[in-house]
Amino acid sequence: VDVKPRDGHGQVVVIGGAEDWDGEAEILREFVRLAGGARARIGIIAAASETASEVAASYSGVFRRLGAAEAYDLKIVDRKDADGAEAVAAVGRASGVFFTGGNQVRITRMLGGTRLDTVLHKRHAEGLVLAGTSAGAAMMSAVMIVGGPPVSTLRAGVVELARGMEFIPGVLIDQHFEERGRLRRLLFAVAQHPDDIGLGVDENTAAVVSGHRLEVIGAGTVTVVDARHLTYTNLNELKADDLLAICGVKIHILPAGYRFDLRNREPVTGADTPAAEGVDI
Amino acid sequence: VDVKPRDGHGQVVVIGGAEDWDGEAEILREFVRLAGGARARIGIIAAASETASEVAASYSGVFRRLGAAEAYDLKIVDRKDADGAEAVAAVGRASGVFFTGGNQVRITRMLGGTRLDTVLHKRHAEGLVLAGTSAGAAMMSAVMIVGGPPVSTLRAGVVELARGMEFIPGVLIDQHFEERGRLRRLLFAVAQHPDDIGLGVDENTAAVVSGHRLEVIGAGTVTVVDARHLTYTNLNELKADDLLAICGVKIHILPAGYRFDLRNREPVTGADTPAAEGVDI
Repeated sequence: VDVKPRDGHGQVVVIGGAEDWDGEAEILREFVRLAGGARARIGIIAAASETASEVAASYSGVFRRLGAAEAYDLKIVDRKDADGAEAVAAVGRASGVFFTGGNQVRITRMLGGTRLDTVLHKRHAEGLVLAGTSAGAAMMSAVMIVGGPPVSTLRAGVVELARGMEFIPGVLIDQHFEERGRLRRLLFAVAQHPDDIGLGVDENTAAVVSGHRLEVIGAGTVTVVDARHLTYTNLNELKADDLLAICGVKIHILPAGYRFDLRNREPVTGADTPAAEGVDI
Repeated sequence: VDVKPRDGHGQVVVIGGAEDWDGEAEILREFVRLAGGARARIGIIAAASETASEVAASYSGVFRRLGAAEAYDLKIVDRKDADGAEAVAAVGRASGVFFTGGNQVRITRMLGGTRLDTVLHKRHAEGLVLAGTSAGAAMMSAVMIVGGPPVSTLRAGVVELARGMEFIPGVLIDQHFEERGRLRRLLFAVAQHPDDIGLGVDENTAAVVSGHRLEVIGAGTVTVVDARHLTYTNLNELKADDLLAICGVKIHILPAGYRFDLRNREPVTGADTPAAEGVDI
């Protein structure tokens, strides 16, 4: 990945879940590299998981195997932890912070508005690299998809939205995207927030977001859903059990190496597509 | 359904499979109605099925229960049958012909270029109503999707296309659409034929096509995929195991009552949307 933050923010690695960790571990390896490689100090937030310490220990082992100088559990299991001086200090010395999977609402409930929330945003603006997988990916946006059936005929009210941690403004993220057939769920969310760009991230795949650019890495694709110019939706007249109608949505399906400009809402094509290595944007 | 053929052709009821037949049987009932209701004479072509006579007998019972005057098996189990005078005569006295599910290639192999093929097109142009479910829906187009994994990361070569029966020009049809997660498969097909409009029909749902208009009936939705203005695809450079990239595809998701103009490539919105009853287009 050669997307470089222009505005001083660290990259955000948005992983669609089920990333390889015992083989090549391409995505986690890239996260470690972005966080400094052999100098990387990775803090792990497993708040989403009900078995937080086990999950954090596993990731800690992986990140060390991948060459990080340090990898440590931030030990966030309630809001008190997230308001504690220890967590703040741990983020202070991290070059990267990783959010595990689990339940995204657990993350926002434990972290939202705490000192940890504040320091994460502050340090991220100074270059701290963030990554999250599955639930840890979903909460990266300002509006977050909480639930909804995986394969659905999209009846009214099936997609629950909540406030996310807002590390990436202007997007809506869904994960396990192709594997769980979530396009319609993402469409439902985007219909309600047509100014936000929907990002559907497949398993073992990531969108590496840097400022207003993203680049895809990993085994699958990122589906970009752009509903800004939607021509029709019945969203506002939907009654219970009604089906969503939505017309004129633009989609882009991007495998590894492809880039997308979240500001222009267009893929970055031309000389540096596909998979242009070494092009500095 | 109030879409009326302008050009003399009968309607084509494109069913996404698994249509209700023992309950309300809304879709099959509508087909019988379009074919003349109490005066309907329904010919059944079960060529797609390996248990053709059993399947035809079941549908025959349903169509009679739904009030058709007659419902009879055309008994097409090989090309000889499809070239026989009996089948031609049976189509001659039908007001509607129904294609069952099974394997779409069995239909095109048995019927393609036969006298039955010719008389079906001739009578359809004179008003014969057609319907097909699942495989019987897939073969309605000129280019037909034969196979490909249901949930796929869309590697090169996974979607097989063949020649269909071409009862509906300018479209590509996929069925069991949401249930089997087939959007990417349809995208792959449409990327190869961007002038054709992709129609993804959910189970127990139908697109009733009449000239250049379609209307959706049934429980699910029809997903319309329009790739005419696609901005980028790597289709022509794909190597084995490469993933498809496709950008700038427009989609429309239409539940029952919604209409789409295949010529303008736009949903029919305005006063008669949604589900405007009694509006004659």
